[in-house]
Amino acid sequence: MADRGQGGSSVSDELVFAADTAVVPISDHCYDASLTDRWNALGGTPNGGYMLAVCLRALSFELDRPDPLVASAYFLRPGRHGPAQVHTDTVRTGRRVSTGQARLVQGPAEVVRVVASYGDLAISGGRTRVRALPPVLPDPDQCTDMTGGRQLAGVTIIDRVEYRSVRAPGWTGGEPSGDSDFEFWMRLRDAGDTDVFTLAMLVDAAAPAVLELGEVGSSTVELTVHIRARPAPGWLACRVSTRYLINGLHEEDFEIWDSRGNLVAQSRQLGIVPTG
Amino acid sequence: MADRGQGGSSVSDELVFAADTAVVPISDHCYDASLTDRWNALGGTPNGGYMLAVCLRALSFELDRPDPLVASAYFLRPGRHGPAQVHTDTVRTGRRVSTGQARLVQGPAEVVRVVASYGDLAISGGRTRVRALPPVLPDPDQCTDMTGGRQLAGVTIIDRVEYRSVRAPGWTGGEPSGDSDFEFWMRLRDAGDTDVFTLAMLVDAAAPAVLELGEVGSSTVELTVHIRARPAPGWLACRVSTRYLINGLHEEDFEIWDSRGNLVAQSRQLGIVPTG
Repeated sequence: MADRGQGGSSVSDELVFAADTAVVPISDHCYDASLTDRWNALGGTPNGGYMLAVCLRALSFELDRPDPLVASAYFLRPGRHGPAQVHTDTVRTGRRVSTGQARLVQGPAEVVRVVASYGDLAISGGRTRVRALPPVLPDPDQCTDMTGGRQLAGVTIIDRVEYRSVRAPGWTGGEPSGDSDFEFWMRLRDAGDTDVFTLAMLVDAAAPAVLELGEVGSSTVELTVHIRARPAPGWLACRVSTRYLINGLHEEDFEIWDSRGNLVAQSRQLGIVPTG
Repeated sequence: MADRGQGGSSVSDELVFAADTAVVPISDHCYDASLTDRWNALGGTPNGGYMLAVCLRALSFELDRPDPLVASAYFLRPGRHGPAQVHTDTVRTGRRVSTGQARLVQGPAEVVRVVASYGDLAISGGRTRVRALPPVLPDPDQCTDMTGGRQLAGVTIIDRVEYRSVRAPGWTGGEPSGDSDFEFWMRLRDAGDTDVFTLAMLVDAAAPAVLELGEVGSSTVELTVHIRARPAPGWLACRVSTRYLINGLHEEDFEIWDSRGNLVAQSRQLGIVPTG
């Protein structure tokens, strides 16, 4: 694992992520959480996937099954660094999945509304038939840091998540390519295992593909992630695509494949670009 | 429009759909609805997209904006024909979108949980850039009825929705092709205009693509639909794809393009196949 050379911390970012998404039960169906400044996205506020992961950690206490299979998050307003509460409810305990709801609130304001269905990814439920291939990429060591080593003001998530691709996206050099489909490697720096909650953050952890179409930002209205398997340790191969920017709204599709070549997460979000 | 020759009814199926998804306010945030037997899917129970459309009709009263931009439905148990109530709440009225929640209940049981964000599709919010083409299909008149004229026991939705493609899927003849990507035409029979609520039903109205992989059925755990534009009248060109069946769970991606060649709806659902 790479030496970060940042104060010599020996704590892996996976452990930092686990601590930063930890929730503490304070009463029935209510948990204390704290949104740290270590997972900031563009805009300097907590990344949406990070806030989703906090909600999913709380739901893993609420529900009787361990793994989120599908989760939908509606982002209502920007999160703030500091204390938050997560209120959870069981919607239905079914034969094969259990469904719950989580609301992340800060003070009087609800920030994120989540509905999710949980199951057990260790139980085989049927046949497997995969009709697409993982991203084809050179070894991570032969790829370039997608941030180009640049700092983006307030964007702390790139201190903890590592992105590597054949070349940096055009927008990072001020020249959007017009091609909003690409593949790249991603992992937590100094990562050991990656768990299912980390996947829910990582599908939202890269810069929006719509930046490659010349937009300067995007806010997520809604994100749904399907967790398809528990990931193996190692680099994750990612594929992102935005095909339809229509009246300032766009989807972003995201896939994450693990080091064994298995699809582990698939997400789609609806984003909205800033108006002049 | 085709003569259905079924009792000579002159009421268009769009009007039938509007009546069958109508909701009546009975108290604050509560609406009466009735699930009819005219929109049954495989299994003889009300189609999930139909129940979602009922919820979206109720939310259009709850929220201050007219069009669902994105809606996520969690299907908790099969619906039954007969009375239902929809309970709605405003989650957040924002600057550009309004978000609400709907719960469709029958007796003591919650059947569907929906979260959705509404906006106004008549307001241009930004740039348009489309990086994919509509399905390429022969004229509907030169296509074949995808059901092969067969009746499927209890599946009444095919009496009201028309499906045409170059050839019927292999599974309809007992020989699944293994190809779960295809394109076809769809519309309500005798349709006039198609509205945004109908789109939410139509993305779930075709037989699951996973049947072409040899599965015999699929239940939707969750469906998220993005409504991208109000559709023009006429046939709708559709594209469906299932690429990842993993341990009995699969996504189904769906696109609907209108007769002007504009993408009007995009959906993804997580389905679960029956176990032996």
